[in-house]
Amino acid sequence: MKRAVVRCRVQTMSATGQVRERPDQLAGEEPLEIRLAGRPFSVTMRTPGQDFDLVAGFLLSEGVIWDAGQIRRMDFGRGVGPDGLKDFNTVEVTLAPGVPLPDTSLERHVYTSSSCGICGTASIEAVRKASHHEVKFDPLTASVTDILELPSRLRAEQANFNRTGGMHAAAVFVRDEDRGGLKLLSAAEDVGRHNAVDKVLGNAVLHGLLPLRGTVLQVSGRASFELVQKATMAGVPILSAVSAPSSLAVELGVQQGLTVVAFNNGSTLNVYSNPDRIRSG
Amino acid sequence: MKRAVVRCRVQTMSATGQVRERPDQLAGEEPLEIRLAGRPFSVTMRTPGQDFDLVAGFLLSEGVIWDAGQIRRMDFGRGVGPDGLKDFNTVEVTLAPGVPLPDTSLERHVYTSSSCGICGTASIEAVRKASHHEVKFDPLTASVTDILELPSRLRAEQANFNRTGGMHAAAVFVRDEDRGGLKLLSAAEDVGRHNAVDKVLGNAVLHGLLPLRGTVLQVSGRASFELVQKATMAGVPILSAVSAPSSLAVELGVQQGLTVVAFNNGSTLNVYSNPDRIRSG
Repeated sequence: MKRAVVRCRVQTMSATGQVRERPDQLAGEEPLEIRLAGRPFSVTMRTPGQDFDLVAGFLLSEGVIWDAGQIRRMDFGRGVGPDGLKDFNTVEVTLAPGVPLPDTSLERHVYTSSSCGICGTASIEAVRKASHHEVKFDPLTASVTDILELPSRLRAEQANFNRTGGMHAAAVFVRDEDRGGLKLLSAAEDVGRHNAVDKVLGNAVLHGLLPLRGTVLQVSGRASFELVQKATMAGVPILSAVSAPSSLAVELGVQQGLTVVAFNNGSTLNVYSNPDRIRSG
Repeated sequence: MKRAVVRCRVQTMSATGQVRERPDQLAGEEPLEIRLAGRPFSVTMRTPGQDFDLVAGFLLSEGVIWDAGQIRRMDFGRGVGPDGLKDFNTVEVTLAPGVPLPDTSLERHVYTSSSCGICGTASIEAVRKASHHEVKFDPLTASVTDILELPSRLRAEQANFNRTGGMHAAAVFVRDEDRGGLKLLSAAEDVGRHNAVDKVLGNAVLHGLLPLRGTVLQVSGRASFELVQKATMAGVPILSAVSAPSSLAVELGVQQGLTVVAFNNGSTLNVYSNPDRIRSG
């Protein structure tokens, strides 16, 4: 996590004309090139750290893989970067034998490249990708009290946000069979909220935990279409967001049978789809 | 702006077990396919409305155009959408004669598709795109008081945010030669912050206002690399963000001679690059 946070000097100015120069810490942001079978597949701007998780999550979101066994290996670039050091901004992915490469015909390529998940589709009609891990019949229910606690439990994992004020975060919580309630499975931070979700879901992929049955994905920002899509690709039945959902996020939640919770502020929350999973008691 | 805001029903739940069903309004989100010379170029998830502005701004950000005259015409799709209505989710762009199409070779295509601006680059080395509108020598200065007012002046333009809580916004302010200070040139809202910036810059493109000398771009969220890149492509010398900047945003600001202001909360702000443009008096 060497470059996850970058130090700099900043001038703080106020309306009274006061100027103060002081040290500050910035959310690290660097491009990551993902290469598949020796060819460039995507570039995403991300916060360095958990890069293999990010790549696995991105490939899951893009529908390239849906199981850890489908990735044979991942390596950082063999070359050196512009600074003469080993290239940690390129990840070479080797898929397992028999795993088909994504369609690299021209029409496909036009859209195969986004950190947003959405552009990785050949056409508007294909936007609603088929997930290999259906969430519609996941029997998970969670109490509203447990869901209301998740934003502050996520907040406790946001060490880099505390230093920079500029990082999104995501965490997966899973039903605790022994003690009831929900327990933290893993968390991740990134300058891009899509990346934070890819990191936390990719971590689950690499640990062989897919489909993520009985889990809740908590995110620090809004619930966009792409985040609901990523959750469905991983088999997560409940997505909880601190901020607002979009219309298409709700539409996809309804269609896929995923519970979309938003405006979760710790004391109240809104449920936009499949409310039966949230118990009021 | 018909579908910019979408109505729905929502269940609001509290820790005390109270459940209340009520109407709610969501930030509209739909895919927009941008077609160039009859071929698909990009799909972005956006809030419907100001779509031609969005397309012009996206093409500017991608380095395809840098002047209104380079677009011959834009039309909504000639077909009908899945709902049997005219297809308002496709925009066909015809470039002016002599304007080169972006390189559509395979290597280029791999990255040509993102709503994030960043993926539209052929390689990591090419990330820092050359702008046709240099900002380094823009003589604009602005008082810290004027810059501190911009977040609330932007807020006053956020009608859809007030209804949904789920929209980003961007506005361009220009030096007021007659009365001093800064005056509003235009503003835009979108579910994606990159789109809000593309809309407001694209609007300036279509009005023949590029390069945007003597202007400040105010955004509702954070200052990422992509937003600094978009500002430099349009020739905007000052970017002001309500929230945090990323490390690469600051790096690009320094390199391009753009002033990056962030954490502008109305009473204090931080200046991360080229502070000479902000007058403390």
